[in-house]
Amino acid sequence: MATKVKVLGFWCSPFVFRVVWALKLKGVEFEYIEEDVFNKSTRLLELNPVHKKVPVLVHDDKVIVDSFVILEYIDETWPQDPLLPRDPYERAMARFWAKFADEKLMQTACKSTWTKGEEKEDALKATMEALEKIEGELKGKSYFGGENKYAYLEIAIGWINYLIPIWEEIASIQFLDPKRFPAITAWKSKFLDNPLIKETLPPREKLLIYFHERVKHWEIDATIRELAETKLEN
Amino acid sequence: MATKVKVLGFWCSPFVFRVVWALKLKGVEFEYIEEDVFNKSTRLLELNPVHKKVPVLVHDDKVIVDSFVILEYIDETWPQDPLLPRDPYERAMARFWAKFADEKLMQTACKSTWTKGEEKEDALKATMEALEKIEGELKGKSYFGGENKYAYLEIAIGWINYLIPIWEEIASIQFLDPKRFPAITAWKSKFLDNPLIKETLPPREKLLIYFHERVKHWEIDATIRELAETKLEN
Repeated sequence: MATKVKVLGFWCSPFVFRVVWALKLKGVEFEYIEEDVFNKSTRLLELNPVHKKVPVLVHDDKVIVDSFVILEYIDETWPQDPLLPRDPYERAMARFWAKFADEKLMQTACKSTWTKGEEKEDALKATMEALEKIEGELKGKSYFGGENKYAYLEIAIGWINYLIPIWEEIASIQFLDPKRFPAITAWKSKFLDNPLIKETLPPREKLLIYFHERVKHWEIDATIRELAETKLEN
Repeated sequence: MATKVKVLGFWCSPFVFRVVWALKLKGVEFEYIEEDVFNKSTRLLELNPVHKKVPVLVHDDKVIVDSFVILEYIDETWPQDPLLPRDPYERAMARFWAKFADEKLMQTACKSTWTKGEEKEDALKATMEALEKIEGELKGKSYFGGENKYAYLEIAIGWINYLIPIWEEIASIQFLDPKRFPAITAWKSKFLDNPLIKETLPPREKLLIYFHERVKHWEIDATIRELAETKLEN
């Protein structure tokens, strides 16, 4: 019996992209099912009754949720082209920085874009601090995983490269000054030039329209809240 | 050269206990260093400059923080008596429920204990919902890991068994009604009777005094905030 893999996703979710990129680079065929996160389907609610969020990975009769948990599952189930390094300490570091970027950068960069006044200033300061820590980690290397452009950490925090530029434009803020963050800037170009990444990312224009719409309505809607909280679905 | 293992901890932290229990059950000798989380030492700030929190694991010259990341490191470095199951799906489930308990139960049970009025009611409702999900997961089994009383999930969410009863007494709330949660209640007794757990837990009286003191001052201090947020140090 052929193995069946499905991913329930949302077209611009950084948590979903992790899962999609991991499956693609391992050559695992899967069916992608787009979910409307503003009007959740019975299918989504049944498959992820606890968090009611994407991504959901369905592998035959097994259902796995939470993008970091899914990444580990993918790496253990399809061990070709390993995502995580072999060394326990390097694995720990990869896991640590992946969580760090979600908890300390995604949240604050989002707040810098969507809030105003003092809240915005505080968020911007925290964003810069988080970016400095990531810059420090990347300095002197081509990729977080050394020469491995498909390592766990690339997949896990690759969202920085497509979402931060969109938020920069929307908020008229330069988060990623190339002089201040040369390592991240160089990594970003390489990441976005990667054919596997290119073929999956939505057009910049579509992302801009989507996030502009969100700001215009000043609706801290489900997706934005998910991004800002970064607590569960990642 | 003999391997050197140190743990920086705080005597009642559920995040620290995870690490201590994991090392003890694997028979890894370590030096325990108590940190004052209200007056952080230079040592802690230097070893964990990013989050400035316990636990910190120091293994020779390697420093690992974040209790879940540390658990994986321990399991990979000292593979005897494995914490995580072998099967990728079972591993995914263990990781999922460990995070779930931190994010959905610790936060809400804490809020139920420390807040008042509507906030308390909402938190209590969410606490019960989280406990019901955990009860459902445990139902029909002795331990989360089947017959393995030292599995990853026991270690990861064992805090329920010593902290919830303390919070129950402080808040005069019964979270764990044995009739409503028979599986958790039975699991709790077995867990607390386990000699390895018994020898590490502080006396009930000391925990009560500590948490009463916190409530008396109505200080949502660093530790409580950490427990309530459950975002980073776990």
